[in-house]
Amino acid sequence: MINPPKQACTELVSLALREDLGIGDLTSELTIPPEVTRTGRFIAKAPGIICGWALVEEVFRQLNPGIFLNIYSPDGSLVAPGDLLAVVSGPVKDLLSGERVALNLLQHLSGVATCTRHLVELVADFPHVRVVDTRKTIPGLRIFQKYAVRVGGGHNHRFNLSDAILIKDNHIAACGGINAAVEKVRTMVPHTMKIEVEVETEEQVREALAAKVDIIMLDNMSPELMAEMVQLINGQAIVEASGNVSPENIRAIAASGVDIISVGMITHSAPALDISLKISSD
Amino acid sequence: MINPPKQACTELVSLALREDLGIGDLTSELTIPPEVTRTGRFIAKAPGIICGWALVEEVFRQLNPGIFLNIYSPDGSLVAPGDLLAVVSGPVKDLLSGERVALNLLQHLSGVATCTRHLVELVADFPHVRVVDTRKTIPGLRIFQKYAVRVGGGHNHRFNLSDAILIKDNHIAACGGINAAVEKVRTMVPHTMKIEVEVETEEQVREALAAKVDIIMLDNMSPELMAEMVQLINGQAIVEASGNVSPENIRAIAASGVDIISVGMITHSAPALDISLKISSD
Amino acid sequence: MINPPKQACTELVSLALREDLGIGDLTSELTIPPEVTRTGRFIAKAPGIICGWALVEEVFRQLNPGIFLNIYSPDGSLVAPGDLLAVVSGPVKDLLSGERVALNLLQHLSGVATCTRHLVELVADFPHVRVVDTRKTIPGLRIFQKYAVRVGGGHNHRFNLSDAILIKDNHIAACGGINAAVEKVRTMVPHTMKIEVEVETEEQVREALAAKVDIIMLDNMSPELMAEMVQLINGQAIVEASGNVSPENIRAIAASGVDIISVGMITHSAPALDISLKISSD
Amino acid sequence: MINPPKQACTELVSLALREDLGIGDLTSELTIPPEVTRTGRFIAKAPGIICGWALVEEVFRQLNPGIFLNIYSPDGSLVAPGDLLAVVSGPVKDLLSGERVALNLLQHLSGVATCTRHLVELVADFPHVRVVDTRKTIPGLRIFQKYAVRVGGGHNHRFNLSDAILIKDNHIAACGGINAAVEKVRTMVPHTMKIEVEVETEEQVREALAAKVDIIMLDNMSPELMAEMVQLINGQAIVEASGNVSPENIRAIAASGVDIISVGMITHSAPALDISLKISSD
Amino acid sequence: MINPPKQACTELVSLALREDLGIGDLTSELTIPPEVTRTGRFIAKAPGIICGWALVEEVFRQLNPGIFLNIYSPDGSLVAPGDLLAVVSGPVKDLLSGERVALNLLQHLSGVATCTRHLVELVADFPHVRVVDTRKTIPGLRIFQKYAVRVGGGHNHRFNLSDAILIKDNHIAACGGINAAVEKVRTMVPHTMKIEVEVETEEQVREALAAKVDIIMLDNMSPELMAEMVQLINGQAIVEASGNVSPENIRAIAASGVDIISVGMITHSAPALDISLKISSD
Amino acid sequence: MINPPKQACTELVSLALREDLGIGDLTSELTIPPEVTRTGRFIAKAPGIICGWALVEEVFRQLNPGIFLNIYSPDGSLVAPGDLLAVVSGPVKDLLSGERVALNLLQHLSGVATCTRHLVELVADFPHVRVVDTRKTIPGLRIFQKYAVRVGGGHNHRFNLSDAILIKDNHIAACGGINAAVEKVRTMVPHTMKIEVEVETEEQVREALAAKVDIIMLDNMSPELMAEMVQLINGQAIVEASGNVSPENIRAIAASGVDIISVGMITHSAPALDISLKISSD
Repeated sequence: MINPPKQACTELVSLALREDLGIGDLTSELTIPPEVTRTGRFIAKAPGIICGWALVEEVFRQLNPGIFLNIYSPDGSLVAPGDLLAVVSGPVKDLLSGERVALNLLQHLSGVATCTRHLVELVADFPHVRVVDTRKTIPGLRIFQKYAVRVGGGHNHRFNLSDAILIKDNHIAACGGINAAVEKVRTMVPHTMKIEVEVETEEQVREALAAKVDIIMLDNMSPELMAEMVQLINGQAIVEASGNVSPENIRAIAASGVDIISVGMITHSAPALDISLKISSD
Repeated sequence: MINPPKQACTELVSLALREDLGIGDLTSELTIPPEVTRTGRFIAKAPGIICGWALVEEVFRQLNPGIFLNIYSPDGSLVAPGDLLAVVSGPVKDLLSGERVALNLLQHLSGVATCTRHLVELVADFPHVRVVDTRKTIPGLRIFQKYAVRVGGGHNHRFNLSDAILIKDNHIAACGGINAAVEKVRTMVPHTMKIEVEVETEEQVREALAAKVDIIMLDNMSPELMAEMVQLINGQAIVEASGNVSPENIRAIAASGVDIISVGMITHSAPALDISLKISSD
Repeated sequence: MINPPKQACTELVSLALREDLGIGDLTSELTIPPEVTRTGRFIAKAPGIICGWALVEEVFRQLNPGIFLNIYSPDGSLVAPGDLLAVVSGPVKDLLSGERVALNLLQHLSGVATCTRHLVELVADFPHVRVVDTRKTIPGLRIFQKYAVRVGGGHNHRFNLSDAILIKDNHIAACGGINAAVEKVRTMVPHTMKIEVEVETEEQVREALAAKVDIIMLDNMSPELMAEMVQLINGQAIVEASGNVSPENIRAIAASGVDIISVGMITHSAPALDISLKISSD
Repeated sequence: MINPPKQACTELVSLALREDLGIGDLTSELTIPPEVTRTGRFIAKAPGIICGWALVEEVFRQLNPGIFLNIYSPDGSLVAPGDLLAVVSGPVKDLLSGERVALNLLQHLSGVATCTRHLVELVADFPHVRVVDTRKTIPGLRIFQKYAVRVGGGHNHRFNLSDAILIKDNHIAACGGINAAVEKVRTMVPHTMKIEVEVETEEQVREALAAKVDIIMLDNMSPELMAEMVQLINGQAIVEASGNVSPENIRAIAASGVDIISVGMITHSAPALDISLKISSD
Repeated sequence: MINPPKQACTELVSLALREDLGIGDLTSELTIPPEVTRTGRFIAKAPGIICGWALVEEVFRQLNPGIFLNIYSPDGSLVAPGDLLAVVSGPVKDLLSGERVALNLLQHLSGVATCTRHLVELVADFPHVRVVDTRKTIPGLRIFQKYAVRVGGGHNHRFNLSDAILIKDNHIAACGGINAAVEKVRTMVPHTMKIEVEVETEEQVREALAAKVDIIMLDNMSPELMAEMVQLINGQAIVEASGNVSPENIRAIAASGVDIISVGMITHSAPALDISLKISSD
Repeated sequence: MINPPKQACTELVSLALREDLGIGDLTSELTIPPEVTRTGRFIAKAPGIICGWALVEEVFRQLNPGIFLNIYSPDGSLVAPGDLLAVVSGPVKDLLSGERVALNLLQHLSGVATCTRHLVELVADFPHVRVVDTRKTIPGLRIFQKYAVRVGGGHNHRFNLSDAILIKDNHIAACGGINAAVEKVRTMVPHTMKIEVEVETEEQVREALAAKVDIIMLDNMSPELMAEMVQLINGQAIVEASGNVSPENIRAIAASGVDIISVGMITHSAPALDISLKISSD
């Protein structure tokens, strides 16, 4: 499994704590002596896939390295309401100061993983099909959202604009055709990089095949047309379906024979998974 | 209307562009000459409230100060599918490089505003009631999400842990009671700051009233119990309802007579509003 | 006691060390072998209140985690010339490299605490009166200066422009009157936030009372007029005195019956407290 | 005149605005329409030397590049109470948001310049004598405080630990004597750098002379002993007096014949100069 | 041509100016009035390929937006000693403050481009062969060095550890063979990413072919063995030669029929191209 | 020996790792379990001077504090091909992720130290002569390159534009002569700072002597003329030779009697020293 770099965890948590602490957690500072220790229990309040413990650990580490986190449901666990996910113990003042940031991160990423898992399961009987994410992510969270997609059983599309080529309509228009665009790219792009083209018509699929691209993205086609295109492409390129994929239509799309189905909603519209942190009061 | 500081816009956009550009937008750099200019049209694909143009403008400004953005549906506009929201024009290479980041920001914040408006409208016939947000926000986006809540017709709760006092169960337990906790806080907290207490029982409401707190948060009570507590409090404190508020129960809560209803879902689970940017191909 | 967040300590010390070290402490690097250890003694050279050990500890931690600091006069201690405040021991090269930054921070914050304590003591027989700070702070040091004010026995006014409302003459003028300004604010401001109005005349005090503000700031009034206004307000709002408060006039102001006296000089003009660090030479 | 680098101005102002704005200037945002423009007048309320306009300009530039600042009393001007120093005009909302930060910077640096000028004037009839600053500065403000010292007619000592060598007692002890320390340094230090030694006795002065150092710092000597040492040194090195220099003793020190008098109080204990910004209300 | 993002230029130049300016350009500040303008001429003092004007422009823009730069030999130009490359005009104080940083960037990147061009020309009669760079770059300068490689006529290998898969001996050992490693990667890696394997023997080449990798890197083989492997691979994968490539052996390697030759020396050991900036003295 | 500050090491390594890791080391993350540990051996592949272990340590510390580095050839060691320089052991995944950055830093700095040593040895029989560096450094690496110069036996010239005065032709022209420029500088510059003047003719040397500067830089003179100037200067100032110094002419320059020879090539054109890191495969 690809884990996000430590540096990225450190920076995101530092940003999140600055945002939530401001001048400090005034209420806890004023009411709770620093030496009082307590135990908190992370408990699932809805079914889903857990994701994000590395960030939770980093939250508490930055506040107080003396806090301990014991994880019972590691990233990727399927949990049910009421499940005990983890236990955190240490100075209660610091637990309270980090509670909200820890939960915000854990709930959001678990939400992404859960939403991904849901779509993955819908197409589970099409084992050759990958559900992949897009660049439609929440700014600042991309590498963590893409990690959550993997945790949920999905795969990743490219991470950003510089790790693969994706030629779209404006690029094609600027070059005067798919072939011209692909040629222009091919002479300069690193040999380590694949070329994908977004197409909307059968004619464009033929052009893309002639240009020997690595991946053909079928944009907003009906499942029927997709099935025809899969036949036409016949293994000469990876076939990706894209555009308004939803739980309602994903099985029909998978049945068309495509290799890849990219879905924006798993990163831009995943609701948070309900998780609580219950800190003992005595 | 409170607008987020310019500095915050600059920093969020800078972070988002770094995340999405990586080494650069290879495809556009390789296929599109820098001097080719085009026009792009932001179009709504679903009904909702628009929010986030200041960030969209900043995205294009950072990429190329020569890009112009003409906004037809400013923040707060109610739009219908097909509505033309704005027109952007400039070098197509730069428009394409910024397209995704601009849309990610606009769609997310418009989603928050739209979700907020929906809840606000559900309680529109209780004009004394405010729908407010929480600290359950996406890390890194808080001040923008809270701005989107205002744009959607909601109000804000505190921004972070240092601009108001909110005494919860662990704070109460550490001090040995609501009165003791409030007194401890009151002797030290700035005179400019209000004190809110979270309560779960009628007895705690009475304690909070005796301690003369500014705001009483009724945590996870039934609407019936809330109505009783409102009677008991009788204007001696602002009354806030909190805990698992949803479109299903918000009207019943509002009918209980509370002043404030705080809702986490408008920031942690708002789906993106569907908006497209269609850039002319010639 | 509200302590500044760890993150803020880390960042201020990092900035201060970069500023003072430049390329490095050339003299110490060239003359002192890294393995030579010594002991340094922080000694008061003037009477005052000590403040700032968390930053001193952070200075030495960043230079060498192997340095130990033993504090005898913790923050808030009243010390006399000659008092031993703390002992620091470790590699002398690192002690010397951190000496100036540590002292600059400790002397400045102790100066603020000492100056605050002086004013607090002047009004000690008016136990209902709070001496509070302002936003007239040294840029970059606000949360530490406000901490030093608390350590000195004072209280804090708002921390920045976003944690309380303070309506001044220009705001009033823009809205056409105190009542209009307060109403405009009240419809939008978070319910967790208090509203303060700055007034200069009795008529304005009456307007502010009519608008039911939380705090009335009497700006630059004579103690006699203040006393009248306190009578007029009669507990309906917190009363704050502001403007050119000095050791000379603070008792007269306190005697007028106001609740709060805000003083700029404790943060913008506090002289450093004289403290030395004597490192043993053998 | 050496001006601080633009980059340093940009960074300090950015830090200061973040600190003071927090989420934003709520009061001004809520009460003042963005299009209302006004004029503000910076007026001296005490006599002194003005310093810091570059930072004031940067404050308003960062908030709104459409603000104009017209300076009548540029850095270095001697002003009297009531003098009009500058006029600033633009959107009143932005003027108010920047007012406090601008004044905090201007008042502090003018305070440093004024305090410096006072000491410089006290020794004005010893034209060969320089009043210089130290490294006893407010963390984060050093290059601006040192600029203010120059503006006030003083000179600078070294900027940080890496632009000159200053050998003190611990360095001497570690090497076993002044000569040994100087030799150790001389073999490695850049040829562009001077060597200064701090001495406490006549014997050490003789050692320093024998070691042919560039500058001899007489630490905490009486003016009489200093005069003797000046005779002894007789132009073979620059002579610097240091230690507890104050307005009371600076003339006696200057009369001893030293070249340089270094003073910590002009940077660590200079009170702010009283300056107001009066923004027209209509 | 792929240009580095503006943000990257801004940040590198900001870092470089901070490093070189320190407290400021004391000599120029003290000797040259800010209003004196002059013209500077960039002149080649050795033959080579010019690269880096975007950074030079950014240097002067950060120091003074009023400086103009007129470029006669844009990036990619082949120049001879004595050629006038560009003219810069503006306040001489700012030209001098930026001179060294501008030249350091321009000379270094032109050195990389020149060194690349030299190798590219050595294999010019093998038009199917690409000379590509490696990750053996100067820390902090990678995207600019890789840009210089392109400007010099070379191509890029992957930019960092996350935009392509390169399986080396330790990865193979950990998985128990090339096939196992490739399978492990293939199930998880984005479909947009190519897989390259580093091999040292014919047996490994056969394994890599069986695993259907995209690229086979022949590590440190003799040209004769490479030629055999090219025959064996026979177009089923891109063939890359790597390891101690130098001007002496690059033609022999190219003649072996490989597609790609990766060379570390063009980024880690390219000498600066000699370029001067002559600023008129009157 | 002057070591670079820890903070500078931390920041450079953090920048370098971000640059090389991107989203993460995908290949290692996908193929190597985190618990597998191995040992790596740093081995010299060419003769030279080793420099940079503090940065190598920091690379591995940031990736995994559990990695151990055992150094056999510390900074300054002269090594031969095949020498074992250090052994590093820990999780192989982390060793691989840091390998390239560690080597890039170590090879570059060792290259600078080696190149410096070569020139130093060429003039070893002129023991009074120092070989010094310039400001012609790789942006972002200056303090480390200057450290490598010291490690190689060279000395440093000034670190940046603010730690010494160097008056060149444009400064002289702006003031109307060497004497005028020196006087202008002398009245303002800190007394801790030396003044150097760059001269091109005998007449200018005489002017510089008359102005009593500390250092005279002979710019691009022939060794013969330099020898004459050394006679003329006769110990009244330090004499520095500058301009196109190379291994070919450095002995002739040294023989002229100058004190200092400044060389740009040791920092701007030093080839990397070949060093490998061989990690055991089982």
